[in-house]
Amino acid sequence: MTEREPTCVVLGGGGFLGVNLCRRLASSGARVRAFGRRCLFPQDLAGVEWRQGDFGDAAALASAIGSCETVFHLVHTYMPQSADLNMAEDVRQNVISSLALLEISRKLKVKRIVFVSSGGIVYGPTPHVPTPETAATDPISAYGISKLTIEKYLRLYEHHHGLTFRVLRVANLFGPFQLPGKNQGVIAALISCALHNKEFEIWGDGSAIRDYIYVDDVVDALLLAATDESEERIFNIGSGQGRDLLQVIADLEASLGIKLAVRRTKGRLLDVPVSILAVERAYSILGWKPRTPFDVGIKQTVAWWRSRAI
Amino acid sequence: MTEREPTCVVLGGGGFLGVNLCRRLASSGARVRAFGRRCLFPQDLAGVEWRQGDFGDAAALASAIGSCETVFHLVHTYMPQSADLNMAEDVRQNVISSLALLEISRKLKVKRIVFVSSGGIVYGPTPHVPTPETAATDPISAYGISKLTIEKYLRLYEHHHGLTFRVLRVANLFGPFQLPGKNQGVIAALISCALHNKEFEIWGDGSAIRDYIYVDDVVDALLLAATDESEERIFNIGSGQGRDLLQVIADLEASLGIKLAVRRTKGRLLDVPVSILAVERAYSILGWKPRTPFDVGIKQTVAWWRSRAI
Repeated sequence: MTEREPTCVVLGGGGFLGVNLCRRLASSGARVRAFGRRCLFPQDLAGVEWRQGDFGDAAALASAIGSCETVFHLVHTYMPQSADLNMAEDVRQNVISSLALLEISRKLKVKRIVFVSSGGIVYGPTPHVPTPETAATDPISAYGISKLTIEKYLRLYEHHHGLTFRVLRVANLFGPFQLPGKNQGVIAALISCALHNKEFEIWGDGSAIRDYIYVDDVVDALLLAATDESEERIFNIGSGQGRDLLQVIADLEASLGIKLAVRRTKGRLLDVPVSILAVERAYSILGWKPRTPFDVGIKQTVAWWRSRAI
Repeated sequence: MTEREPTCVVLGGGGFLGVNLCRRLASSGARVRAFGRRCLFPQDLAGVEWRQGDFGDAAALASAIGSCETVFHLVHTYMPQSADLNMAEDVRQNVISSLALLEISRKLKVKRIVFVSSGGIVYGPTPHVPTPETAATDPISAYGISKLTIEKYLRLYEHHHGLTFRVLRVANLFGPFQLPGKNQGVIAALISCALHNKEFEIWGDGSAIRDYIYVDDVVDALLLAATDESEERIFNIGSGQGRDLLQVIADLEASLGIKLAVRRTKGRLLDVPVSILAVERAYSILGWKPRTPFDVGIKQTVAWWRSRAI
């Protein structure tokens, strides 16, 4: 082990949240390795060691983890919509591969795994809005079930082997490096349509309420979770505020100074009508707070898009 | 479809609980098919159509389900101890095979799946004793996680496809047709040792408290769950009372009129110290109540053993 050996690895480091996390870690002077199937923004990962590999490839995973003490687990090989169409394969690629990750991490003496779960999906339809971490978890999407199952195995490994973990149940993320076209990230899709003068398809009537959180704030929470020594394991990370899609569109129109062309389409069955996270636990235990007001996040995201001319 | 075509199928119908359920169904005049890897008591399944097959064999499973409207899902291919040693395989054989079962059931227009989950394991260590269905579910055993995950997929299939389900989280079962030697069923193991003058190994110091429920009472609950039309989906099924192992041994000694030879051994890591189920939901919603006092159940179980000379 040389002096340059990374002390933390970001699994899924080539994706939207992963790139944001890696950049922050590198800029703070951490030695960081990113592992993933592909890196969408290689030019933006200066100072980060990039390691290409598949999450299901145990040998590649073990090599990427090496002597890292902290593992950020940001991988999910399916989107919510596609997981519902491939439930068994979702379990194989995500749950079973996460079991392999746990076993590798135990053997390599990893100290902490920080896992990104889905605050918008693991609870399912719930009367508790905003929804605290203690609410029942009855997802109506296979994606939510596999996320939840991985959370449970993390707890089991800590209980059996002392491998500590933290779970962040993150709300609807947006910000720089999020690309449209994967049925994820409505804000990226909206900005893309706006900048390219394309029509935007609304799912349902636009009344679905979501909790939008700017990516920089989520990166803050990931770093705090990596060193948290509290008794808590699971933290909601969101703005704590709900916005329906029509409000989001209005805010974006105001920010861009243009009018978006929208078209309504059929609602997705896997959607819950309202998802707002109660985030008091992260406030009080992690000392975390979202720093970025929604309109500021939107402005910064639009600025990033314009700088890239994507 | 002939008149003799079964209307319900018991998956795992050759095992302890399965044989008890099949016998009751057959004796009540139901046309019933039992499906399983092997039938330990073929002579006891008069009037039941036996179908040998592996739960992981989708074609055999589809054939066994046929035109049945009700599926009792009693299969788990691992014991709690062995599941912890084979987590990925446990997921493949139980979670992924249950996903196949759900897909087959949807296609074959099954109306109701009744799934037997584990009341003693899915909750994990909890401050809520007796434990209600609404308690947090944080198992410290892989067996509990896969049971819980299957519960979640059942809910998803009802939500997406209208395939109704009920889950019984059953406490520590005992009664006729339970055999020792599979690290399950402490009472069967105790009776076997007593009748064969063998020493019995206690896990830990004998202070672990469990909720013991006689198998006939669980069969009652399975039949009620098959036709329940309430809004509830998950029911604890137990006596609602806790007994430590030393009490169980004392009761058994009184019933048998002999003194058991016991030896203490190391506690299992996957054990919680106390497991007692709160069963008010089953009382009020299913109209279920355990009919068999513990000592009566013990006497009936001992009588069964003596009649069999196992």
